Amino acid sequence: MTKQEIFEQIKKKNSFLCVGLDTDINKIPSHLKNSSDPLFDFNKYIIDATADYCVAYKPNSAFYEAHGSKGWESMQKTFEYIPKDFFKIADAKRGDIGNTSGLYARAFFEEMNADAITVAPYMGNDSVVPFLSYENKWVILLALTSNPGADDFQKIDINGEKYFEKVIKKSLEWANSERMMYVVGATQAETLKEIRKLIPDHFLLVPGVGSQGGDLQKVAMFGMNKQVGLLVNASRSIIYASSEKDFASKAAEEAKNIQIEMKDCMEKYL
Amino acid sequence: MTKQEIFEQIKKKNSFLCVGLDTDINKIPSHLKNSSDPLFDFNKYIIDATADYCVAYKPNSAFYEAHGSKGWESMQKTFEYIPKDFFKIADAKRGDIGNTSGLYARAFFEEMNADAITVAPYMGNDSVVPFLSYENKWVILLALTSNPGADDFQKIDINGEKYFEKVIKKSLEWANSERMMYVVGATQAETLKEIRKLIPDHFLLVPGVGSQGGDLQKVAMFGMNKQVGLLVNASRSIIYASSEKDFASKAAEEAKNIQIEMKDCMEKYL
Repeated sequence: MTKQEIFEQIKKKNSFLCVGLDTDINKIPSHLKNSSDPLFDFNKYIIDATADYCVAYKPNSAFYEAHGSKGWESMQKTFEYIPKDFFKIADAKRGDIGNTSGLYARAFFEEMNADAITVAPYMGNDSVVPFLSYENKWVILLALTSNPGADDFQKIDINGEKYFEKVIKKSLEWANSERMMYVVGATQAETLKEIRKLIPDHFLLVPGVGSQGGDLQKVAMFGMNKQVGLLVNASRSIIYASSEKDFASKAAEEAKNIQIEMKDCMEKYL
Repeated sequence: MTKQEIFEQIKKKNSFLCVGLDTDINKIPSHLKNSSDPLFDFNKYIIDATADYCVAYKPNSAFYEAHGSKGWESMQKTFEYIPKDFFKIADAKRGDIGNTSGLYARAFFEEMNADAITVAPYMGNDSVVPFLSYENKWVILLALTSNPGADDFQKIDINGEKYFEKVIKKSLEWANSERMMYVVGATQAETLKEIRKLIPDHFLLVPGVGSQGGDLQKVAMFGMNKQVGLLVNASRSIIYASSEKDFASKAAEEAKNIQIEMKDCMEKYL
């Protein structure tokens, strides 16, 4: 999917919502647990229910790998099920030496047919570049994450510059805004203003709205650019809006509420 | 496996070799390619052939994930096949926010029954700690890797201290040498001397000997401690020593050569 195509979808839906498919067997409604593939069945209902309100889906690989090869299959089926006009993100946070990253690229871009994969930057250039050789596929590089541990290493000050800023600057040598995005946590909304000085045109994947406490209005105010440039992710607050039989309609309701707020943000800040 | 148990195995075998199971379908002998599970079959032969000369095996998850759920199954069977007295490392380089890292821990420590997993430090404390709650299981934290990209971020100077040293120092707050190891590339042998000042008692997982050009004697000279404290990995130079029908005996030969050199190193530096 190209950057322009993502923007078109956002305009069409008045939404820049990404639904995170962090599908936890312990949290899905009990009536689904006895199916032959509960993770996939749950995802199917969630995708059907939320499709009108979002432009992207993001299965997180950990939730599937916790079930071994069977879980891996549920993830694969989930990626296949997501309709073509959605941006499909494999939230896998991979990264290894060159030839090995190439195999992760194959796993997620070829086997899963994902449009994008999240990548951890610690190993540098040759751990990221192999993911960039696929046409219209994306690297979403971890920059400033939404978790408490982000303080430990990402914010270390180096002569007045934060470490994550170094990561962003260096990575601009590898790809432009047509092939690379960055993860910036919604819990770090004010920092978005500074980050936009470095990367005015890039899309940002923003987790942390909802359960993690991030504020959508602030994210939009500080982070939106001319093509919106934001994919804001919500996972738990949508997919576990209810743990009863009405889980899908409650998920739709929650996604719709976010979409309405996003429409408002686009009217204000776009 | 405890630190003492690893040391006992090393003394018994006169070897601190870890065999990396980077099993690439394009590189295994052609007569194996038509089996129902070529990756696992290849690994079985390699494990049988090299078991006398090594103390650890390290499947790298990328090579298996590249084949989807089928590859994930091959990885699972490989972990099951490795005999009990070997240290089993899942080279997966995972790391995510707290609850999600917990699921990766479940995937590799429970589903795979690995003894250790490599973890990327970028996301900090809560991305690493969930792996530390399993008794006698290990985190092997990326510190200074063997690839060219290591220069990009790991070696950034912060007031006279390298970034990877900051990572090591911070991580010492999370676990001691009974639960944490570090990846330090063999291509960085001279740095081992400095690293040993920070972590004299920890085990280090040292990739990069063999195909990547690292020097075993130097690694031992600068890195060995009283319990050896090194697991030196070789992958391609052993498992692809031959691409013909004699691949297993050639792998054994190559592993044995390294083991003999390791015995020599232990006599010199232990």
